[in-house]
Amino acid sequence: MGAFVLSKGKIVSLTITVASPGSREQRTVETGTTGLDLFGTNPDIVAMKVDGEVRDLRAGIADGAEVEAVPAASNDGLHVIRHSAAHITAQAVQRLFPGTQLGIGPAIDNGFYYDFRTEKPFTPEDLAAIEKEIKQIVRERQPFLRRVIPDAEAAVEFAAEPFKMELVDLKGKPQDAETAGEVGGNELTVYENMRRDGSVAWRDLCKGPHLPHTGYLKAISLTRTSAAYWRGDQANPQLQRVYGTAWASMDDLKAYQTRLEEAAKRDHRKLGAELDLFSFNDLVGSGLPLFHPKGGIIKRAMEDYVRQAHIDNGFEYVGTPHIAKEDLYYTSGHLPYYGDFMFPPINDEGQAYRLKAMNCPMHNLIYSSRGRSYRELPLRLFEFGTVYRDEKSGVIQGLTRVRSITQDDSHSYCTTEQVADEIRHLLGFVLKLLRDFGLNDFYLELSTRDDGKKKDKFLGTDEQWAVATKTLEEVALASGLDLVADPGGAAFYGPKISVQAKDAIGRTWQMSTIQLDFMQPERFGLEYVAADGSHQQPVMIHSAKFGSIERFLGVLIEHYAGAFPAWLSPVQVLGIPVADEHAEHLEAVAAQLRARGVRVEIDHSDDRFGKKIRNAAKQKVPFVMIAGFEDVAAGAVSFRYRDGSQQNGVPIADAVAQVASWVESRRNDSPTAPESQG
Amino acid sequence: MGAFVLSKGKIVSLTITVASPGSREQRTVETGTTGLDLFGTNPDIVAMKVDGEVRDLRAGIADGAEVEAVPAASNDGLHVIRHSAAHITAQAVQRLFPGTQLGIGPAIDNGFYYDFRTEKPFTPEDLAAIEKEIKQIVRERQPFLRRVIPDAEAAVEFAAEPFKMELVDLKGKPQDAETAGEVGGNELTVYENMRRDGSVAWRDLCKGPHLPHTGYLKAISLTRTSAAYWRGDQANPQLQRVYGTAWASMDDLKAYQTRLEEAAKRDHRKLGAELDLFSFNDLVGSGLPLFHPKGGIIKRAMEDYVRQAHIDNGFEYVGTPHIAKEDLYYTSGHLPYYGDFMFPPINDEGQAYRLKAMNCPMHNLIYSSRGRSYRELPLRLFEFGTVYRDEKSGVIQGLTRVRSITQDDSHSYCTTEQVADEIRHLLGFVLKLLRDFGLNDFYLELSTRDDGKKKDKFLGTDEQWAVATKTLEEVALASGLDLVADPGGAAFYGPKISVQAKDAIGRTWQMSTIQLDFMQPERFGLEYVAADGSHQQPVMIHSAKFGSIERFLGVLIEHYAGAFPAWLSPVQVLGIPVADEHAEHLEAVAAQLRARGVRVEIDHSDDRFGKKIRNAAKQKVPFVMIAGFEDVAAGAVSFRYRDGSQQNGVPIADAVAQVASWVESRRNDSPTAPESQG
Repeated sequence: MGAFVLSKGKIVSLTITVASPGSREQRTVETGTTGLDLFGTNPDIVAMKVDGEVRDLRAGIADGAEVEAVPAASNDGLHVIRHSAAHITAQAVQRLFPGTQLGIGPAIDNGFYYDFRTEKPFTPEDLAAIEKEIKQIVRERQPFLRRVIPDAEAAVEFAAEPFKMELVDLKGKPQDAETAGEVGGNELTVYENMRRDGSVAWRDLCKGPHLPHTGYLKAISLTRTSAAYWRGDQANPQLQRVYGTAWASMDDLKAYQTRLEEAAKRDHRKLGAELDLFSFNDLVGSGLPLFHPKGGIIKRAMEDYVRQAHIDNGFEYVGTPHIAKEDLYYTSGHLPYYGDFMFPPINDEGQAYRLKAMNCPMHNLIYSSRGRSYRELPLRLFEFGTVYRDEKSGVIQGLTRVRSITQDDSHSYCTTEQVADEIRHLLGFVLKLLRDFGLNDFYLELSTRDDGKKKDKFLGTDEQWAVATKTLEEVALASGLDLVADPGGAAFYGPKISVQAKDAIGRTWQMSTIQLDFMQPERFGLEYVAADGSHQQPVMIHSAKFGSIERFLGVLIEHYAGAFPAWLSPVQVLGIPVADEHAEHLEAVAAQLRARGVRVEIDHSDDRFGKKIRNAAKQKVPFVMIAGFEDVAAGAVSFRYRDGSQQNGVPIADAVAQVASWVESRRNDSPTAPESQG
Repeated sequence: MGAFVLSKGKIVSLTITVASPGSREQRTVETGTTGLDLFGTNPDIVAMKVDGEVRDLRAGIADGAEVEAVPAASNDGLHVIRHSAAHITAQAVQRLFPGTQLGIGPAIDNGFYYDFRTEKPFTPEDLAAIEKEIKQIVRERQPFLRRVIPDAEAAVEFAAEPFKMELVDLKGKPQDAETAGEVGGNELTVYENMRRDGSVAWRDLCKGPHLPHTGYLKAISLTRTSAAYWRGDQANPQLQRVYGTAWASMDDLKAYQTRLEEAAKRDHRKLGAELDLFSFNDLVGSGLPLFHPKGGIIKRAMEDYVRQAHIDNGFEYVGTPHIAKEDLYYTSGHLPYYGDFMFPPINDEGQAYRLKAMNCPMHNLIYSSRGRSYRELPLRLFEFGTVYRDEKSGVIQGLTRVRSITQDDSHSYCTTEQVADEIRHLLGFVLKLLRDFGLNDFYLELSTRDDGKKKDKFLGTDEQWAVATKTLEEVALASGLDLVADPGGAAFYGPKISVQAKDAIGRTWQMSTIQLDFMQPERFGLEYVAADGSHQQPVMIHSAKFGSIERFLGVLIEHYAGAFPAWLSPVQVLGIPVADEHAEHLEAVAAQLRARGVRVEIDHSDDRFGKKIRNAAKQKVPFVMIAGFEDVAAGAVSFRYRDGSQQNGVPIADAVAQVASWVESRRNDSPTAPESQG
């Protein structure tokens, strides 16, 4: 891995940058030198960066340029591998199914897809055959060659591909998300795969870059097919989309597949049904969860804990309705800026109402409902407010992407001098809360304004943004956590810090946000009387701690694979009598546990003992409390834990104390028998 | 007071009914006998009932009729007095302001109004002049004479009254609520007030009945004016509405005015602002309250208590979204039956969603999300679900009639055999809850189907209604509370019991409801597996305990006149140092109180001691905790209570224990000094 700077003049000199940051080496090479000359044909290096732009290794390097290797396993390298894998897949499809027309085929997270117009959908057998053909193309080590072509030539070469012809027409026009990767700016480029004899095996209209040849593709797997509309529009022809995944090595591919399997086991949608926590129903609509009694218990335990934590930390609990006149959102500036995310209006007697998509405008009205003094600041208004966002059905997913979002939402109003302390207070608070729920591995992201083309999407002056961004950055750095930049990711009204948390299998979830806002106080005319009697404008800081209860519950289900900490478990103790005659004994213990606030059920079903134990394991109950003849005789119970360990003959008083104190302690680990404890 | 039955034949005989039920007296009178002949010109008897219909005392009585006196102070009597008062008011207006056109003038609760088209709104001075003119008309003792007139004659007599002419056109047509009292069925009647010389002083198109003469009006007061549209439609001309109140005696009028003053002092809208509990805002919309931090504390205390009570009583807490597809409400039958009460649809990508106006359909989906066994019944699903009802702006009032309604809503699913026990369980539970909040004076109302014309507004068979009504009635009677019939008041899907509670000044509020429903289980195909393995349909019972949190909070504010029980008070203890140097002492006590879960504030403002004490009284804080030099020296505090009594030198440990135990006990009375306790 290195970077080269080509010096001016006939004789080219390069500066190599070694892998450690800041180290560079100047090197002299001949004119016409390519990346392959510099880095060799080594499948670990799949592309190069020339002055920061990812390019084909086959490209020539201009005088004075800075060059760096792009490793296969880097983000940029994987993007090149996956985009090339899409081409190879398309070539395989057209070899096997002549006459199939091409849509588009971009790299996506963890893989790629390619859309095809076919006579009939691909079967699983078709996918297997395509994979086999892909392997053949890989063995053929076909070079990827880039060529700029005039429109007229493209019209000839892609005459049989009507969708590609549409893309040709898009050249130089603003691109949508679907086609952005397909056509370059003002020139058309084509990538051609060559046979050994120098003839063209396959070509695609494409911006690139690509692998030097198909043999660089080391690990690919086709995963599934789905229907898709050309350019995402239902008015257009329906296409067949083939999804695949591709990696730098077979080891990486296998690790990914293992992660997928592990994630599938933890899938909160699957566990949500198995544990009877929640459901969705077509009569209600997608993204609108119904929480069943057991899901309701967890949701309530989460809400109660978080609400009390807010109150203990100086937040004041308020309540606002779920609809308001549109006027409110024009005042706040969410309309028109945020209009796409809001549900369409309810038109009632000539008045347009909107489902609220955020609580802040209503909190501002509470702030301004009476005069405020500097003595009251920071004033922290807090609500579990359910907001509604018009997520498109394509992106809705279980609880982690819903349309009814119960935010644990606070707004701090403070003086300019208090801003840094308040952000520090909020950041400390959200990290404490996340840790209380068993998440411990965090980094921070700092989302700032896009200072480029999209600057007009953001309200406020350059100076306001600079000051606010600097304050957030200072507090974030002082936290000691890693800080990642997210330029352009800010809301239109101010920069934010977001907390990214890693779950038990290493996946990252965006959780809490702390967001500065110097717009809304102005738009709502918020003020306070300062110590000197003058009227001043407060700064406003938005903060969601979990993000939303729904999403956080989804994350926790996956984090714990459904085996919740006892304090969150819907059923904390399940009593199983060895025979019916032992049930009464368990009921007596259950009564004592209930008096201590423990959630206990006794299995009175007709199932046999073994079945009851298996059911309890499926329900992932932390304390399975068993009583047989010996337990009854000894005034004791036995416990069976999630890990299969067992603790027999625990005297009732000890058993009650043990369970109650475990629950009250809000420990996030699972109980186990004393001899099993490490 | 008496009732007469006129026998058939030339000689008329009457049966007098004395005031005690069932007693009747037959009496023989001449043909042409009127109510005035029977009851005399006695202002305590203002009309008569002939075969159950209220009639003028001047009317002749037909052969064989049963006649009863209508006392001035009875509901029917007050209606006659108030309707006549409306006529007298209109005559006074037209005498003072010639050319004023008449709208309508019905009797309403506690009074009456009359609408006028005038050149300019009435001033308070105008109202005083009108009252003076009314007294003159009363002194003139003008008879009210009823006359049936042909349409053509009405067209001549009301030529100067365009609104009356419109009413003439309504004759025989279906009437709306506004005009129902104005025009009879298929004949037009006019009531004329006569001068001494026999000429007509004033006339109105009217169904009657009326007082014998204007001198019967003993107690009238004009109260206010407002704008109103002709027939309630903003497209029609704007009129001036004059409101008044009228009673059987000056004593009754004065008692009413005293009640109004008392109610005004307790008005929850006024107290809500003074105590900083909640507000409404034009940007949000009418009927959509914003709960401020102090209102939020009370709302949360209410919700927490009620939720725990539900859980302790076998209810299971669920959660559902605030919108659903229209399909859901067509499935439930709320659309089209209940459509007028729902907000108009949200049209999102070709799909119509509705704000939920009730939680039951979603609870049904939770019920049916998996198979159910008889062992699970009764299954009680419970939610604090905020529903939205499209109340028209005219009826919205503070928190007691809102458009966002947080119901403490449960649905019990049970077998037919369990119905009576479940209703008993629910009734016992709601009465216990209301008592826990300090309401103690109840009666029940049984709302049944309208078996007459509107029968088609109700779903279900005659037998279903009969059985369900009988079950509710039996449980209601067994409660020992008074039971009042409300025929026609049922929901379209089943009969209900509602709990009517009297507040501290004797006003009745409808609170809890328990409602049977044999429709929705069928429409949603709900079932359970019975002990014999067969599939059966459960019965569903809806129950709201408070009705809604918003409304119940409004009622509690008025019931307690803002002086909430300590457990519900936003600030339970307010510390007031005699001088700044004593504040630290109070903060130390406050810390101990907070550790016991008590809500404490210390007044650190620059106000003087006396002002602080007055502020605390205005905020109706139950425990005002004072510390001066002596308290600090003695390690004590002093308490000042709402009734002005004071308890000095209470050792800190005693003070903390006293306050904490008072709060924990959830006593609904106000604390007072030991020597003040009766």
